[in-house]
Amino acid sequence: MALRLSELAGRLGMRLRGEDREFSGLQTLEEAGESDVSFLSNPRYAPFLAGTKACAVIIAEEFAHMARTALISANPYLDFARAASFFVRKPEPFTGVSELAVVHPTAEVGKGCAIHPHAHVGARSSLSPGCVLYPGVYVGEDCAIGPDCVLYPNAVILAGVTLGAACVINAGAVIGTEGFGFVRADGAMRKIPQIGTVVLADGVDIGANTCVDRSTLGATRIGKESKLDNLVQIGHNVSLGEHCLIISQVGIAGSTKVGDRVTMAGQAGIAGHLSIGDDVTVGPQAGVPKDIPQGVSGSGSPFMESGTFMRAAVLLPKLPELDKRIRRLEKKLAGMEQLLARFPDTAPTSDEETP
Amino acid sequence: MALRLSELAGRLGMRLRGEDREFSGLQTLEEAGESDVSFLSNPRYAPFLAGTKACAVIIAEEFAHMARTALISANPYLDFARAASFFVRKPEPFTGVSELAVVHPTAEVGKGCAIHPHAHVGARSSLSPGCVLYPGVYVGEDCAIGPDCVLYPNAVILAGVTLGAACVINAGAVIGTEGFGFVRADGAMRKIPQIGTVVLADGVDIGANTCVDRSTLGATRIGKESKLDNLVQIGHNVSLGEHCLIISQVGIAGSTKVGDRVTMAGQAGIAGHLSIGDDVTVGPQAGVPKDIPQGVSGSGSPFMESGTFMRAAVLLPKLPELDKRIRRLEKKLAGMEQLLARFPDTAPTSDEETP
Amino acid sequence: MALRLSELAGRLGMRLRGEDREFSGLQTLEEAGESDVSFLSNPRYAPFLAGTKACAVIIAEEFAHMARTALISANPYLDFARAASFFVRKPEPFTGVSELAVVHPTAEVGKGCAIHPHAHVGARSSLSPGCVLYPGVYVGEDCAIGPDCVLYPNAVILAGVTLGAACVINAGAVIGTEGFGFVRADGAMRKIPQIGTVVLADGVDIGANTCVDRSTLGATRIGKESKLDNLVQIGHNVSLGEHCLIISQVGIAGSTKVGDRVTMAGQAGIAGHLSIGDDVTVGPQAGVPKDIPQGVSGSGSPFMESGTFMRAAVLLPKLPELDKRIRRLEKKLAGMEQLLARFPDTAPTSDEETP
Repeated sequence: MALRLSELAGRLGMRLRGEDREFSGLQTLEEAGESDVSFLSNPRYAPFLAGTKACAVIIAEEFAHMARTALISANPYLDFARAASFFVRKPEPFTGVSELAVVHPTAEVGKGCAIHPHAHVGARSSLSPGCVLYPGVYVGEDCAIGPDCVLYPNAVILAGVTLGAACVINAGAVIGTEGFGFVRADGAMRKIPQIGTVVLADGVDIGANTCVDRSTLGATRIGKESKLDNLVQIGHNVSLGEHCLIISQVGIAGSTKVGDRVTMAGQAGIAGHLSIGDDVTVGPQAGVPKDIPQGVSGSGSPFMESGTFMRAAVLLPKLPELDKRIRRLEKKLAGMEQLLARFPDTAPTSDEETP
Repeated sequence: MALRLSELAGRLGMRLRGEDREFSGLQTLEEAGESDVSFLSNPRYAPFLAGTKACAVIIAEEFAHMARTALISANPYLDFARAASFFVRKPEPFTGVSELAVVHPTAEVGKGCAIHPHAHVGARSSLSPGCVLYPGVYVGEDCAIGPDCVLYPNAVILAGVTLGAACVINAGAVIGTEGFGFVRADGAMRKIPQIGTVVLADGVDIGANTCVDRSTLGATRIGKESKLDNLVQIGHNVSLGEHCLIISQVGIAGSTKVGDRVTMAGQAGIAGHLSIGDDVTVGPQAGVPKDIPQGVSGSGSPFMESGTFMRAAVLLPKLPELDKRIRRLEKKLAGMEQLLARFPDTAPTSDEETP
Repeated sequence: MALRLSELAGRLGMRLRGEDREFSGLQTLEEAGESDVSFLSNPRYAPFLAGTKACAVIIAEEFAHMARTALISANPYLDFARAASFFVRKPEPFTGVSELAVVHPTAEVGKGCAIHPHAHVGARSSLSPGCVLYPGVYVGEDCAIGPDCVLYPNAVILAGVTLGAACVINAGAVIGTEGFGFVRADGAMRKIPQIGTVVLADGVDIGANTCVDRSTLGATRIGKESKLDNLVQIGHNVSLGEHCLIISQVGIAGSTKVGDRVTMAGQAGIAGHLSIGDDVTVGPQAGVPKDIPQGVSGSGSPFMESGTFMRAAVLLPKLPELDKRIRRLEKKLAGMEQLLARFPDTAPTSDEETP
């Protein structure tokens, strides 16, 4: 695809300063060729402006003088994202139901859906208009899939699950698998039937190979516009709020309630039956054993507020040194005690711990 | 489905106190409607008894007076689980081999098996009676699948693997993938062929997208009734005992031997070539670098016994404070040393560390 | 399969000492039967030599006297690996394109490829000679797959991805899923289109259910002969060098650059936008928040060099004891202060912290 700089500027409301020309792609400052547009959002990349081959740079007013040709933007990162949307690959056009797909006669398929070969739709399930089911997708019985959902190859939606509008389920994700409910009774393991379901609100993204368990009772819920990365585990009966960002390999254990606009960084683990407030930020690899009130940012295992975490993290590698300093103090103090013992008037200080 | 309270009581050996009526579902105390039965197992939820809309509550004798209508049970949680089993959704009845499945002519398929469209069974594999293979399931060559196993959509059983009776393989799980065996030789990476297999005993559950590696030699083994949650990694040559509970995102590295009735909480990691005794409990995110003797409970990275862990975990966020206290001691001591130096009789205490 | 010991020795350049005979498999010293060959590589297993039933042992000269029948080798582990390659199961011979596969008319399929039932190849993609696509594999549009690649069941290669020669993609792995790019703007979540791709060099192995994200711009790259284990997450725009070993459940966040011959142990997490030098080793569960220079080995969260980590890890469980020792010092010092206060000439030492 080729566009003129002036055309891009016009579409996105940016101001072109410099020569107009055609360009054909987007790239970072460092890797751009002469037919690429680039962008500057993080000032730490400003040193690359001098050497870039990009034919133009999406850039804020204050830095624009540093670019040969500038596309001046109030929010360069957002305008880069909007520009990128013009370069998204369009898949081969296909709608309708492939002859090689298996759609139960009682299932409903809305207008403009694309059901690729080897996809499955179970009895009594409904697909609203505009859904795309790539090959190998499984939608079980009694599911309700909202309009314009995209289910990538080999994604699995088990029976009874509900998806809102415009959800994206990436490849290999599994929604509605049985919650891990077992009780040890009489020395044996007894399964607790998981008779609930999963409900995803509108605009939810589920990453590749991520798992969302069905609830024991009621529903596991993911709120509007929440985005889950790859390989995330959401336990049964979890309730996740709106506009959350859950990064890769995070695990949230059963029955925990998470508020809105919460961010959890990679590999964090949240124990079960907790309450995590709105606008909380949990750092990478954090281990959260207790409720977190609204607005708190923190990290660490166990989870601590950010300030505490930063100070504690710095001291962890210094533990050997702390130990050494304590030993030195003990030695000195013992020396002083010996010294003081020589004075007539002094009683020995006790070595006993007060309980 | 609708049942009468008296009928439920009769089937499970509970005692009904209050008015008999029909009900149609199970719910938590908080979310129950008027046609739901609920339960009280954890006393911390007792405050919800007053406000619940549930038409009856499965409850222990001692709390029964707090419920309008009580189903009195010796073990409310277990009876709830048993009640839930009446409400498990029944999938569309289907047995036989779909015309759209691919079953090798040399494979044996037992009576009452259901092989859904786009499932695969390789050469010389045998499925015992009553197995269900959902769409997209792959069973490789020379596998032996015990009776009444359920393989959910897109589960993969690679060549030569053995499953006992009544195993459940959840969606996207992979059993028998090549162990991660490489040796750096002459600056290159050389693969060590993994010529072993995987053997699951009776009643094993494998979670969604969980991976169990085939062994280098012999077999990777999972013992009777052991339950693995989603996204778990079991390395090659691991041997896991009976009745274990392995929670989501746990990783067990190669050749480690785990005893019976072991519980590992979410995201714990166990190094390779270890021996973990019977009845061990490993906490969430624990990192286990050494053998654990029988019966020990613990957590932390590195793993410590529970008591130690609890005390150490409390002190981690206090590291900055410990550091401050040491600095204060150092300062005071320096002051005292100066002071004592004024006394004629005192030799300076050494600042040197004994080696 | 059966081989004579002399034949094995001949093929691998080992020297047979003891009686020649036929054998039929390979096993560990402990589990070998009379028709198995075993090996001794790690001297810690030498005690098993006495009791093994193996008919011969691949072994170094210096230990050979301890084996009844020895296959004397300069590198017993490597020769074991080479011997194992003779015992790798050969899958049912199959080449060609199954009638039940879906290959777009514009796709190119090289000589000797095997495309199993229910595999997919999208428009304009090319498979070089000798590739195997197992059932349920999805290769999207515009992909380029090098010669002799093996894609195990249900592996997913999304549009535009490039694989070098002899790559192995294990079951359920997903290559080229959308990078997790979102920006919070005006209180809403806006997706950043990921218009880049993924490029795997020759000889790359990707573990089961591992995810490699496509880049925002340019390509996410995995270098020659690098091996990734199961359930690994590689973020968008990551660049991984050659001959790396990335163990199970590791996560590498977006835009991080990793050098050659790097090893990352299980569950380690690497933050985004970092630079990790050549020949670095990262321990299990390590959390890496900063660049690591070339050649460093370390572990811990936050990451520390190995020596520091070992000393710090030992002290973690001793935190309660350190705390006690500090309290004891404080108490003693307070006692001494009281004592010294009795002397006329002494001013009180300050309890105040210098800022």
